[in-house]
Amino acid sequence: MTTQQLIEQIQLKKSFLCIGLDVDLAKIPTHLLKEEDPIFAFNKAIIEATHHLCVAYKPNTAFYEAYGLKGWKSLEKTIQYINKNYPEIFTIADAKRGDIGNTSSMYAKAFFEDLAFDSVTVAPYMGKDSVEPFLAFKDKHTIMLALTSNEGAFDFQTLSVNNKELYKEVLEASKSWENSENLMYVVGATKAEYFKEIRQIVPHSFLLVPGVGAQGGNLQDVCKYGMTSTVGLLINSSRGILYAANDSTFAEAAKQKAEDLQKEMELILTAKK
Amino acid sequence: MTTQQLIEQIQLKKSFLCIGLDVDLAKIPTHLLKEEDPIFAFNKAIIEATHHLCVAYKPNTAFYEAYGLKGWKSLEKTIQYINKNYPEIFTIADAKRGDIGNTSSMYAKAFFEDLAFDSVTVAPYMGKDSVEPFLAFKDKHTIMLALTSNEGAFDFQTLSVNNKELYKEVLEASKSWENSENLMYVVGATKAEYFKEIRQIVPHSFLLVPGVGAQGGNLQDVCKYGMTSTVGLLINSSRGILYAANDSTFAEAAKQKAEDLQKEMELILTAKK
Repeated sequence: MTTQQLIEQIQLKKSFLCIGLDVDLAKIPTHLLKEEDPIFAFNKAIIEATHHLCVAYKPNTAFYEAYGLKGWKSLEKTIQYINKNYPEIFTIADAKRGDIGNTSSMYAKAFFEDLAFDSVTVAPYMGKDSVEPFLAFKDKHTIMLALTSNEGAFDFQTLSVNNKELYKEVLEASKSWENSENLMYVVGATKAEYFKEIRQIVPHSFLLVPGVGAQGGNLQDVCKYGMTSTVGLLINSSRGILYAANDSTFAEAAKQKAEDLQKEMELILTAKK
Repeated sequence: MTTQQLIEQIQLKKSFLCIGLDVDLAKIPTHLLKEEDPIFAFNKAIIEATHHLCVAYKPNTAFYEAYGLKGWKSLEKTIQYINKNYPEIFTIADAKRGDIGNTSSMYAKAFFEDLAFDSVTVAPYMGKDSVEPFLAFKDKHTIMLALTSNEGAFDFQTLSVNNKELYKEVLEASKSWENSENLMYVVGATKAEYFKEIRQIVPHSFLLVPGVGAQGGNLQDVCKYGMTSTVGLLINSSRGILYAANDSTFAEAAKQKAEDLQKEMELILTAKK
């Protein structure tokens, strides 16, 4: 999917919501545990209930790897289900990978070719040659960690290097990498006040924004400082939507939570015009 | 496996060699491609030929994920084979994971519980709360990236923060994290001159050292500056051993390459005494 197609979907659906498919078997309704593949059954119900309200789905690979072979199969079925039934939806493998060149190439192959995701998240610590193998897939998108939503973001990301915070150096440096036009960035919603300065470095890039909901980030603040003329934001919510209820009404409850966010986004988009 | 048990194995085998099981189907002998599981068949032959010469095996997860479900199954079979037949060998899931707390917990579960690895590599960018969920597994080891072997290491890791390079800040900060005694660190062999200063920060920790062989690192230099009284080094070689030959002699050729390294290590250990 091209960036232009993503923007068109945002305009069409009046939504820039991304739903994080982070399925924890300990949290889903117990009646689903009888299914042959409870994780996929859960995802399918969530997707059916919410696909018209969001523009992206983001499974975090940790939640699938934790269940071994079965989990990887659930991930495969989930991405195949989305790609087949809702090809207009942008898919993100939230994997936070990054390794030396020949190894990053294998990860890129795993997520872009084997699983056919539109994008994958990567970590910047190993530098340019650990990210460029992802960027080499020109019809795909690479979403690099910049400023994350957790407390630990302050351990290293905000330390001062070259008279600016490390995450700004990461943003700045990445702009010169080959095929950098395929880059998007992760910026946590819990740090809304940072978006203004981030937009000075990457004025047009899409930002994937976790941390609204369970982690306490505020949608209005993020949009105030982070939104561009073509929106440029994908706001992720995972737990707040997935676990809105844990009985037979879970999909309906998830839909309601997604709709609440979509409505709030629609208001913001309308006000912006 | 405890650190003490690892040290005993090093003394017993006169080796601190780690073999990276990074299996690329494009590089293995073509006769193996007829096998039901070529990756596992390759690994099994390599393990049978080299297990007496090394103290650790390190599959890099990228090379398994690239083949999807089949690849994950090969990884599972490989770790099970090692744990069953050579439980005295230290196993490393080279995964370079790291995420917000509840997600890192899922990764820790994946590698420590589901796959039963002794250790996993993690990335530091997201800070303390992204690594502590791994450290919470007290009978396991967490190997954090400090200074990597690739060119990109100079993009961010060696930038100056708080009057020292970032990788030193990472080493320093991690010492105060909960259960930090379970930490080991990745330091690339291509940067041997850095080991002296690294040892001032982490004098006793085990260092996992990639980059000897294909990437050009020098074993003698690494040992000169990085070795401790209990060795404190795991020197990794992947491509140099795995692909020493690509015909029916591949396992024998791999054994020879591993033996060359083991002999060199034995000389260093003897000289040290």
